[in-house]
Amino acid sequence: MKIICNTELLSEACQNVQRVVSTKTSIPAIEGIYMKALGNKLMLTGYDLEVGIDTSIDAKIEKEGAIILNARILCDILRKLPSEIVHIEADERQLCIIRSGDVKYKIVGIAAEEYPETPTVTGGYPIIVESEILREMIRQTNFAVSKNDAKIVHTGIKFEIKNGEIKLIAVDGFRLAIRKENIKYTGEEISFIVPAKTLNEVLKLVDNTDVVSMNIAKRHILFEIENYKIISRLLDGEFLDYNSAIPKSLTTEVKVNTKLFMDSIERTSLLITDRVKSPLRCVFDENIIRISTITSLGTATDRIPCQTEGNRVEIGFNNIFLLDALKACNIENVKINLNGSLSPITIVPPEGDNFLFLVLPVRLKNEN
Amino acid sequence: MKIICNTELLSEACQNVQRVVSTKTSIPAIEGIYMKALGNKLMLTGYDLEVGIDTSIDAKIEKEGAIILNARILCDILRKLPSEIVHIEADERQLCIIRSGDVKYKIVGIAAEEYPETPTVTGGYPIIVESEILREMIRQTNFAVSKNDAKIVHTGIKFEIKNGEIKLIAVDGFRLAIRKENIKYTGEEISFIVPAKTLNEVLKLVDNTDVVSMNIAKRHILFEIENYKIISRLLDGEFLDYNSAIPKSLTTEVKVNTKLFMDSIERTSLLITDRVKSPLRCVFDENIIRISTITSLGTATDRIPCQTEGNRVEIGFNNIFLLDALKACNIENVKINLNGSLSPITIVPPEGDNFLFLVLPVRLKNEN
Repeated sequence: MKIICNTELLSEACQNVQRVVSTKTSIPAIEGIYMKALGNKLMLTGYDLEVGIDTSIDAKIEKEGAIILNARILCDILRKLPSEIVHIEADERQLCIIRSGDVKYKIVGIAAEEYPETPTVTGGYPIIVESEILREMIRQTNFAVSKNDAKIVHTGIKFEIKNGEIKLIAVDGFRLAIRKENIKYTGEEISFIVPAKTLNEVLKLVDNTDVVSMNIAKRHILFEIENYKIISRLLDGEFLDYNSAIPKSLTTEVKVNTKLFMDSIERTSLLITDRVKSPLRCVFDENIIRISTITSLGTATDRIPCQTEGNRVEIGFNNIFLLDALKACNIENVKINLNGSLSPITIVPPEGDNFLFLVLPVRLKNEN
Repeated sequence: MKIICNTELLSEACQNVQRVVSTKTSIPAIEGIYMKALGNKLMLTGYDLEVGIDTSIDAKIEKEGAIILNARILCDILRKLPSEIVHIEADERQLCIIRSGDVKYKIVGIAAEEYPETPTVTGGYPIIVESEILREMIRQTNFAVSKNDAKIVHTGIKFEIKNGEIKLIAVDGFRLAIRKENIKYTGEEISFIVPAKTLNEVLKLVDNTDVVSMNIAKRHILFEIENYKIISRLLDGEFLDYNSAIPKSLTTEVKVNTKLFMDSIERTSLLITDRVKSPLRCVFDENIIRISTITSLGTATDRIPCQTEGNRVEIGFNNIFLLDALKACNIENVKINLNGSLSPITIVPPEGDNFLFLVLPVRLKNEN
């Protein structure tokens, strides 16, 4: 392989591809970036056996070929090169020479043959989503993804796509996040579960483009974002039947300013530390929410205005879970639906049903 | 104690004072901020038995008194208060109520009597230094302070002040940094060693002021920076006789652009990792410096122009130590004085003697 290309272009592409490269593995090949020079393109791949990122840049190919170079070293080198042009040359013994300006590196690469094959996604037709909408939908659900590996399927976000609608669902056993949007799609109804890790990579690449295309196969999904392809395995297993988890009735409906409520939760939660895990107590009264905590460090009380319809409810929460849900709302006012002090609450927009966040309550100590 | 004051003013003061407060100690009192309301001032102190910071803010004192409040909790609370006014009230049982807007905290403080006495510095006359100059002098020497506790005295910076001159010296066994400035001082010649930790606190407070005043006692130093007083113990012991460590002769004198040299060191050092510790090889030739490394990862070579007078020298360095010294130079071109491949080099300005950085060489493998 012998190529000449633009340093910055190659550096940016390698840094994007590098993110999925394994750093702790016993297989040196997958700690590397796979480079393949063909025609007038240099193709680059990073792959950790679960998620892969592919891209290509324009390059002058003086001799076609392929090599694997350690991702960290390659990226470090590219970032520091003095000239805007870089020459890369690799011989049959995988000795690779990188030259730019007066600097010259000789490093040993790995034979291209040792790179694992990345899965291919063929057939199906692409689902096109606006980048901005997909980004928002991921951000508004991924906080509720389970961090616990006990049920792997819940470490991903479920996508449900049907005629005219796309829905993302995440759940971790304490809370549930649902985000819905309209979409131009008339194919058959499909659903699949994408690992949160893959979606974080999608988030990082989605900025420079208008639309994201998704192609779904039986076990894999392919995201196409401009010049980048992200391929990922899908998660397999029984996802929570979330519809049955959402309470159908309510005794109390509260409208509140999102920021006011968040600020108050943050203030009153200051005495809740890792060392002292106590619930946050909320009393939803006629036109006021009283928020308080009692921990071994002391007590904090606060109150904010609201509009309440229905019964007074006194209810306890994990402060972080309640706050996470409110932060995801991204809207000036929210509606909180309550069903007594022992049932989960749902947080929804005052109008429409774009999102639904469900939070389980925590039993307060003076109750039975 | 019962006071009313401006939230932001108190919050800022507490955050500055908090920085020296112990976080891991068996004495709860010194995990706190000591607050004392007297006249129309609220005085605040943080002290970890080595370094103390003192300040005071205007406050409406409704009842004089003093209390110790946990620094982390107090600062967290103050940062989040909703109103620009805060009320703080503590009773005889150290129950402290903090109120602002609708939020109210009740936390238990510690009796003021339990706070350790901070040392006082009396007598002597102050030495006045321009803030900007002191900041620069500390920054240009503290990189060479020893991180190793084996010789405590070298974990500080030595100050030597005499008629018209102030000199800061740091040394860690592998390198030496000396920074000199003119100063209006006509008192007797003095020298003392200030812990690097104290000087880091000085750096953080020095931004908002024109001059810093230093008062030196036998075992302590007091820095006065605007409204803040930093008191610190001095370090005691035999500081390196640094003058005898500086080579008096030279065989080679090199003038080089500082940035060019730094960039080249950074580039060629990329193959030197924590795992592979190898020296950086520099060949100072007639009008060129050749910089290279050979590690198990590969080789890197680079070269930059320079002006050399004297013999060609091939010499090895710890890349970090060489780079640290060049970074501290803060000047377009520097002069490097060499004395063969086994003697320390000194890096000095092309004109004058404001700074001197000495770096020990590392023996290269192909030498005897």
